[in-house]
Amino acid sequence: QGILERLDGGEIVIGDGGFVFALEKRGYVKAGPWTPEATVEHPEAVRQLHREFLRAGSNVLQTFTFYASEDKLENRGNYVAEKISCQKVNEAACDIAREVANEGDALVAGGVSQTPSYLSCKDKAEVKAAFRKQLDVFMKKNVDFLIAEYFEHVEEAVWAVEVLKESGKPVAATMCIGPEGDMHGVPPGQCAVQLVKAGASIIGVNCHFDPDTSLETVKLMKEGLQAAKLKAHLMAQPLAFHTPDCGKQGFIDLPEFPFGLEPRIVTRWDIQKYARKAYDLGIRYIGGCCGFEPYHVRAIAEELAPERGFLPQASEKHGSWGDNLSMHTKPWVRARARKEYWENLKPASGRPYCPSMSKPDGWGVTKGARELMQQKEATTEQQLKELFQKQK
Amino acid sequence: QGILERLDGGEIVIGDGGFVFALEKRGYVKAGPWTPEATVEHPEAVRQLHREFLRAGSNVLQTFTFYASEDKLENRGNYVAEKISCQKVNEAACDIAREVANEGDALVAGGVSQTPSYLSCKDKAEVKAAFRKQLDVFMKKNVDFLIAEYFEHVEEAVWAVEVLKESGKPVAATMCIGPEGDMHGVPPGQCAVQLVKAGASIIGVNCHFDPDTSLETVKLMKEGLQAAKLKAHLMAQPLAFHTPDCGKQGFIDLPEFPFGLEPRIVTRWDIQKYARKAYDLGIRYIGGCCGFEPYHVRAIAEELAPERGFLPQASEKHGSWGDNLSMHTKPWVRARARKEYWENLKPASGRPYCPSMSKPDGWGVTKGARELMQQKEATTEQQLKELFQKQK
Amino acid sequence: QGILERLDGGEIVIGDGGFVFALEKRGYVKAGPWTPEATVEHPEAVRQLHREFLRAGSNVLQTFTFYASEDKLENRGNYVAEKISCQKVNEAACDIAREVANEGDALVAGGVSQTPSYLSCKDKAEVKAAFRKQLDVFMKKNVDFLIAEYFEHVEEAVWAVEVLKESGKPVAATMCIGPEGDMHGVPPGQCAVQLVKAGASIIGVNCHFDPDTSLETVKLMKEGLQAAKLKAHLMAQPLAFHTPDCGKQGFIDLPEFPFGLEPRIVTRWDIQKYARKAYDLGIRYIGGCCGFEPYHVRAIAEELAPERGFLPQASEKHGSWGDNLSMHTKPWVRARARKEYWENLKPASGRPYCPSMSKPDGWGVTKGARELMQQKEATTEQQLKELFQKQK
Amino acid sequence: QGILERLDGGEIVIGDGGFVFALEKRGYVKAGPWTPEATVEHPEAVRQLHREFLRAGSNVLQTFTFYASEDKLENRGNYVAEKISCQKVNEAACDIAREVANEGDALVAGGVSQTPSYLSCKDKAEVKAAFRKQLDVFMKKNVDFLIAEYFEHVEEAVWAVEVLKESGKPVAATMCIGPEGDMHGVPPGQCAVQLVKAGASIIGVNCHFDPDTSLETVKLMKEGLQAAKLKAHLMAQPLAFHTPDCGKQGFIDLPEFPFGLEPRIVTRWDIQKYARKAYDLGIRYIGGCCGFEPYHVRAIAEELAPERGFLPQASEKHGSWGDNLSMHTKPWVRARARKEYWENLKPASGRPYCPSMSKPDGWGVTKGARELMQQKEATTEQQLKELFQKQK
Repeated sequence: QGILERLDGGEIVIGDGGFVFALEKRGYVKAGPWTPEATVEHPEAVRQLHREFLRAGSNVLQTFTFYASEDKLENRGNYVAEKISCQKVNEAACDIAREVANEGDALVAGGVSQTPSYLSCKDKAEVKAAFRKQLDVFMKKNVDFLIAEYFEHVEEAVWAVEVLKESGKPVAATMCIGPEGDMHGVPPGQCAVQLVKAGASIIGVNCHFDPDTSLETVKLMKEGLQAAKLKAHLMAQPLAFHTPDCGKQGFIDLPEFPFGLEPRIVTRWDIQKYARKAYDLGIRYIGGCCGFEPYHVRAIAEELAPERGFLPQASEKHGSWGDNLSMHTKPWVRARARKEYWENLKPASGRPYCPSMSKPDGWGVTKGARELMQQKEATTEQQLKELFQKQK
Repeated sequence: QGILERLDGGEIVIGDGGFVFALEKRGYVKAGPWTPEATVEHPEAVRQLHREFLRAGSNVLQTFTFYASEDKLENRGNYVAEKISCQKVNEAACDIAREVANEGDALVAGGVSQTPSYLSCKDKAEVKAAFRKQLDVFMKKNVDFLIAEYFEHVEEAVWAVEVLKESGKPVAATMCIGPEGDMHGVPPGQCAVQLVKAGASIIGVNCHFDPDTSLETVKLMKEGLQAAKLKAHLMAQPLAFHTPDCGKQGFIDLPEFPFGLEPRIVTRWDIQKYARKAYDLGIRYIGGCCGFEPYHVRAIAEELAPERGFLPQASEKHGSWGDNLSMHTKPWVRARARKEYWENLKPASGRPYCPSMSKPDGWGVTKGARELMQQKEATTEQQLKELFQKQK
Repeated sequence: QGILERLDGGEIVIGDGGFVFALEKRGYVKAGPWTPEATVEHPEAVRQLHREFLRAGSNVLQTFTFYASEDKLENRGNYVAEKISCQKVNEAACDIAREVANEGDALVAGGVSQTPSYLSCKDKAEVKAAFRKQLDVFMKKNVDFLIAEYFEHVEEAVWAVEVLKESGKPVAATMCIGPEGDMHGVPPGQCAVQLVKAGASIIGVNCHFDPDTSLETVKLMKEGLQAAKLKAHLMAQPLAFHTPDCGKQGFIDLPEFPFGLEPRIVTRWDIQKYARKAYDLGIRYIGGCCGFEPYHVRAIAEELAPERGFLPQASEKHGSWGDNLSMHTKPWVRARARKEYWENLKPASGRPYCPSMSKPDGWGVTKGARELMQQKEATTEQQLKELFQKQK
Repeated sequence: QGILERLDGGEIVIGDGGFVFALEKRGYVKAGPWTPEATVEHPEAVRQLHREFLRAGSNVLQTFTFYASEDKLENRGNYVAEKISCQKVNEAACDIAREVANEGDALVAGGVSQTPSYLSCKDKAEVKAAFRKQLDVFMKKNVDFLIAEYFEHVEEAVWAVEVLKESGKPVAATMCIGPEGDMHGVPPGQCAVQLVKAGASIIGVNCHFDPDTSLETVKLMKEGLQAAKLKAHLMAQPLAFHTPDCGKQGFIDLPEFPFGLEPRIVTRWDIQKYARKAYDLGIRYIGGCCGFEPYHVRAIAEELAPERGFLPQASEKHGSWGDNLSMHTKPWVRARARKEYWENLKPASGRPYCPSMSKPDGWGVTKGARELMQQKEATTEQQLKELFQKQK
């Protein structure tokens, strides 16, 4: 059954988690460029991550083609010793996703995301050509449906949807925006309307904000569609980081991005609350983005198991709400084997010298921080840089 | 070159990270039992994690045989549909570790850990028999050296070392204790002396406490050895969680254990500080335990790259101290591409409703808290109320 | 010079601080009733507090007649051994304020506040009669002007202003509301318009919210007046507690109210920032409410000393921005004798087991929290458990 | 009855709170010098504070003679327009304390504290002469007993006790030290022994550390006396600030000292816990130091009311454990009228951008902080300084 048959039939579809962050921690993706050449360089690592998400309950495996447009790979790929062609990266991504999808009951979705061409003000034709190049691979490899994701500007997202619709396959579109809307100031409700009018059957948000904020944004999208008397399925793939202190541009502007976000990582229980809230809001395509590890996806599947009637495979290694602790030797740990315990826990950070919120940089950057930025770097850094050069 | 040749030659040996926590998040290990039947059930997942650690810089791959003694598997393995024999688990663990070790320049270490038999007061012979059963497999599979790890009682650790020494292979021994010593009150310095006298060539700590606390403990061990005029190589494999609020039994007693530890996860920069501090303390076997992901191991290798003269493979996907951010489009993110920035960052938790420290449960509970628990409720309050009434 | 002459002439008028909280800590006011019978019982304590505010820079001494309407005193005064008449309390308050005002250059303002009669739905005539009773005393004692303050409903505030206007004296009116408006849902801008139309020459907010939130509310009031083409002087007398987590009803609903607010107390530097921000917003009557101690009022006067050309008396015991620390024996304490130090200090709470924000109780409770409260306990949990069982 | 008759008879004696901090906030004492010329300049303010402590339950009124030795007044008094003689300050302090003591059943204690002469390495004779000069006034004014307090070095404290003993009056001695001992490294137990041998009948600690830390120190003193088979009454007068993060020199070295300590202020409930704990430890002279306001002293008296059989006067304006909230109109505030509520409350700071603990300056100062110290001050600070000069 295709994605639309499932959603139209009232099924809950569970997405997967974020590849660039997970694979960065595993050693296969470089933060900064965030490009997916690992599909060619280390297919076994990409395959394994797909498998873990499948096992955790994902019904959709997205091809690992984030930032895999030709302009991006050329722009950022220069740190790769031997250039790997855009086509090879995208083809390998499709093959791996399909291989793993066949191990279970999952769909393969081909994905495109925002392009450097758009940001450097190139014209519509050029940007569309970049998407079309990726789409050619997706058609050749016959993915099940398409996702346009991680767009900061609805204008570019609409162009992407228009290209993807040429394929005749169902198209989903998610933007990385918060309740304040896109970078040009278009509010979420209007973004939703434009995406549906451009042909998207599923719309929503991904990345940049935590689950709570993301659901707030989807709610505004839903209201926008209702006001315009339009219909679409709703989708959410938020961060697995708490970001109550974000500005308009989301977690990119937080001082902790991207190498100090650890204390913000959400727990499995946070995810269960998110899954329930998303469901109650009418969202039926529920997944995650950066920070989501397999166990976060499993938490979605476990929370919605009563509605779906089954648990994911990986739940064989997990008890509901911690009930596997009931066999623990220590009575005070056994006492944690219950829902209320984990539901109400306020987890400590173990960091008494750190604050609980940060002021985002960017346009709201403080004067002090700006001065700090201008400071020269250390000499030992230079030395280490030389080591890097030598190795390459 | 064997482990002792390397250490005797002044090399820095980098350990690997924690398997049970990493594989729990990937969906292959059950929290509570924490047993390693995944070596048989899902060898590809175990293999991939080994590979990631190797790539991140690990010079030792430990067989995934944690809690794989027969008594533990029988005790906890009852949730597994089909029982898997102790021997099969241990053999598969050896095979996988060796296969990956051969992909690089790593040693394979066979590991044993504390047994339920000891805790249930069985006798020395029985406990030793359990270790010997695992050792038989390690000998058959010809591992490079042996590690007795995760012992809360030095008595049991000594028994383990005595068994492992029968093999003629080098033996390392680490206890999961803090500066207060083992569960019977033996201080770290004395634990170290007993372990060395039993035959361990490398001693130290693993698990239960954060890097800072663990190094404090190793320092006490070192001082104990010096006082006793004994020599051994030092080793540290701490948690990748901040635990300044732990009691004697470490993170087990924290209310967040094991499903709410996320806000405590250390950053790569915390690890670089740990690696430097460990090195300065004279520790030359530097690795990690629960919470350590491949990127944490890479951080050890990068911090000590000037001393070692090379970087690990996975550094091709990582810039020193964030320098890969220097190409970022936003100037305030580019400004994060320097050592002082990450070194001095006080990362926010994004959790304003949560505290920064917790009171441990159980034996870890502070005396004050315990007294508080035992206080009777307010008969004195009633008396005071009566006084108030009288006054009016 | 009267209050309006001063404000019309462009002067900055500095108010005083909160009497009920300051005198509660000194032992003369009972939290809960919060009534001012101390004017009769312990005039020396009230006189001393007036003197401290005068010395700190207050240009207005408000009679300590908060909650001194007859209905309130009868309602709450029953804990006082011997009943003290409403008239006596109000008269004593006027006498003490005038006595201290004459020691300097301050005005005396007679104040009325919200009544139990209004809350228990009595009619307009009855509520107005209560205000008129207090006004009779203010006229007899010839106060300089009148303040209607601490109103949660603009309807009652308008009635108060109408009564006070009968006197012919200038009338100021402040409400204890936040940006969400009054308890009936009237937004701040409309509240301002109604108060000015009723005859108030000075309008603004007092109590219930911290300086930042209060200034936000006054800004909305200002915009409301501009839209209605009305003119009035602006006034702010906020809490000296940080309340970023308040709901609509302000600090009353915080779990810490009223006996655990200490960690929220603002510093003198917070007040300097508030005074500057208030001034920049066009507010010229700048004072404080609950939590404001004399040194907080002094901080207003010191921040605005460049504009006013003089410092208050109490500054003879205070250096600007900590410069009196420059004589300290320890160099690291001397290093604190400068503006940037105190301006940028992020003061620690010394409470690692406490959070930084609270969820308000009551109506202030967030929608999410309310829903959480209403959730039934775990029938779904049971269902999930059964699923788990079945799978095994 | 004298102090020793009371203590020997098993009475609990309640001390008073800190004058320099309380009067600094009221505008009568300058932070930095911390000298008590207010006894001459503003006797009404000093008298009122004494009265509030008396009313709150203090059985001892200490003369406000802190830092009133001649060398200190000359050293620090130069900012006072007209020099006030040491003798006048001390005499006025005695007169005021006696006047208020006579309003109740309190004793007057003359107090001396550490001298600049000692710190600048003057000889024993000179330091003793300074104490003797103050003692002459205390004898002339016939105080009831004497206190040597706020000593960082036991050597100087012993000299003070020796001088005070010449009077024939009972002598109490408290040091401002923590568990690590005095600034020369003498541990608390030995300090206690030396003080008792010098003639002190009552010994303990005051200032510099929070209640918990201070009680820990007194416990060590008690153990020191027991080991030496000496006897003395125990006394504690700690800070009313939480200082878990202090180093050896206490709160002086905290970055928040002295103008950013607000978030650390203890609640009345913290004080009740302190009073109970002090009592259980065998301490019978229980008071406070910097940060203690009258309501904190009242909390000691209320906690120990069951043992003492009576409440202080100021309790007529206070309900036990918040029971005066039971009449509140809002049900959720009424729900706070009970002991468990306040006892268990973890009060939020309202400061999500601030940490919970600080690194102390001083010998442990971080490199970054040290560089910050060297920065030049702002020009506006200079301008404000000129204003100060003009006024004087």
